Amino acid sequence: MDKKPLILVTNDDGIYAPGIRALYHAMTRLGEAKVVAPDSERSAVGHAITISDPLRVWEYERNGDFFGYAVNGTPADCVKLGVKAILNKKPDLVVSGINQGPNTAINIMYSGTVSAATEGTLMGIPSIAFSIASFKKSDFAFAAEFAIYLSRMVLEKGLPEGTLLNVNIPALPAEEIRGVKITRQGRGRYEEFFDKRVDPWDRNYYWLSGKKLLLDNESDIDDVAVMENYIAITPIQFDLTDYKVLKNLQKWEIKLPS
Amino acid sequence: MDKKPLILVTNDDGIYAPGIRALYHAMTRLGEAKVVAPDSERSAVGHAITISDPLRVWEYERNGDFFGYAVNGTPADCVKLGVKAILNKKPDLVVSGINQGPNTAINIMYSGTVSAATEGTLMGIPSIAFSIASFKKSDFAFAAEFAIYLSRMVLEKGLPEGTLLNVNIPALPAEEIRGVKITRQGRGRYEEFFDKRVDPWDRNYYWLSGKKLLLDNESDIDDVAVMENYIAITPIQFDLTDYKVLKNLQKWEIKLPS
Repeated sequence: MDKKPLILVTNDDGIYAPGIRALYHAMTRLGEAKVVAPDSERSAVGHAITISDPLRVWEYERNGDFFGYAVNGTPADCVKLGVKAILNKKPDLVVSGINQGPNTAINIMYSGTVSAATEGTLMGIPSIAFSIASFKKSDFAFAAEFAIYLSRMVLEKGLPEGTLLNVNIPALPAEEIRGVKITRQGRGRYEEFFDKRVDPWDRNYYWLSGKKLLLDNESDIDDVAVMENYIAITPIQFDLTDYKVLKNLQKWEIKLPS
Repeated sequence: MDKKPLILVTNDDGIYAPGIRALYHAMTRLGEAKVVAPDSERSAVGHAITISDPLRVWEYERNGDFFGYAVNGTPADCVKLGVKAILNKKPDLVVSGINQGPNTAINIMYSGTVSAATEGTLMGIPSIAFSIASFKKSDFAFAAEFAIYLSRMVLEKGLPEGTLLNVNIPALPAEEIRGVKITRQGRGRYEEFFDKRVDPWDRNYYWLSGKKLLLDNESDIDDVAVMENYIAITPIQFDLTDYKVLKNLQKWEIKLPS
């Protein structure tokens, strides 16, 4: 590469999260890295964008140094605003993360981390989402190393238009990680229930709870690969049309009601 | 059908919106209809769910009659909470809408209306999203008629597991609608920019703006069908894996960094 690549760094855990610090410092080794991230946690926001409210931007410092731009919006907002109003140019790469917690199977639908990479992809920028597959406090050093390695590869090779990479890294010391697998999105989902509770003012409230079910066993499924201590890389695209069902629906002969 | 079907009705425009009133009254003609909907507008929230905050439920009346349950959450929250904590049983159908504005092409990614139907589908319930393809104040009468017709069909025939129907209805009088098309998700997206403004307190803010680009011309694309005055029905699924790219990625020989 002749010129230093411009890399937009964001996440959904918020600009204060340790994962984005690790990712930002990793990206400074590859090019010019710019952080534009939510001013607080925006987990499970899906592909939300803010259209009915104004967005504001703050310059956020760490230890007396400028670290990045904090936005009162979602991860997708950060990418849109970052490209269109803060950087004012198209970055060469969008990276999102490093998320604390897996973004595999059903979680991809809810993930703000993936959503930021989705937005980058929709804007025609090669984009990667990085997650550590554990909710426990993690060491991001190895994941950051892998982020450098894979980001360099993507900067060199590019990605097909409309496709992002969703990367899940086991929360393990480097020597226990067995390798890398190209994977498919699993079907695993949550068995969910609501905890009904009473607040200090005697009013009811509900809180979502649940545990994830593993519904796959093939070794090329994201969840399975991670469980077997592999890094899982799933290419993700956004044509949601169900082409198989489309043909069957033709046979329903749906007409205008008379 | 022997028994009256149980139908969960929700939306993303909020429980006060005229579109959900039209859909609710339509569904009462088919079965036992229950409204569980956001307590205020939740447009463009994507597939967001609320995990870090409590959810509360209010009983909402209209003209002295109980109308439905209002929730301080997203459309996906409403479906989860509706099924698991309010109805306490699996409905036979989830319907979402009638949304004021098209949910075609890229809008599907951001849509709260579609997200509610997504959540229903993920819970194993046949689900349909209904939208009027105009942002202008619309007459919902014909769309409601069509919702009854299609919902009855889906109650009779069912839907394949993991697939929802996303329905977009032209904002036209019944006699100007030319028919029904089974469609694919278009590639149309927004050309976007941010309006930079100054608030009454002299602080900057940004507001997302843009216009949608039509990038398709095939008559079986959702956007095109609606533009040609057809009702567009797109079957939607949630395996986001890019299978074409998956094969190519194998050739990258991605390894652990050494």
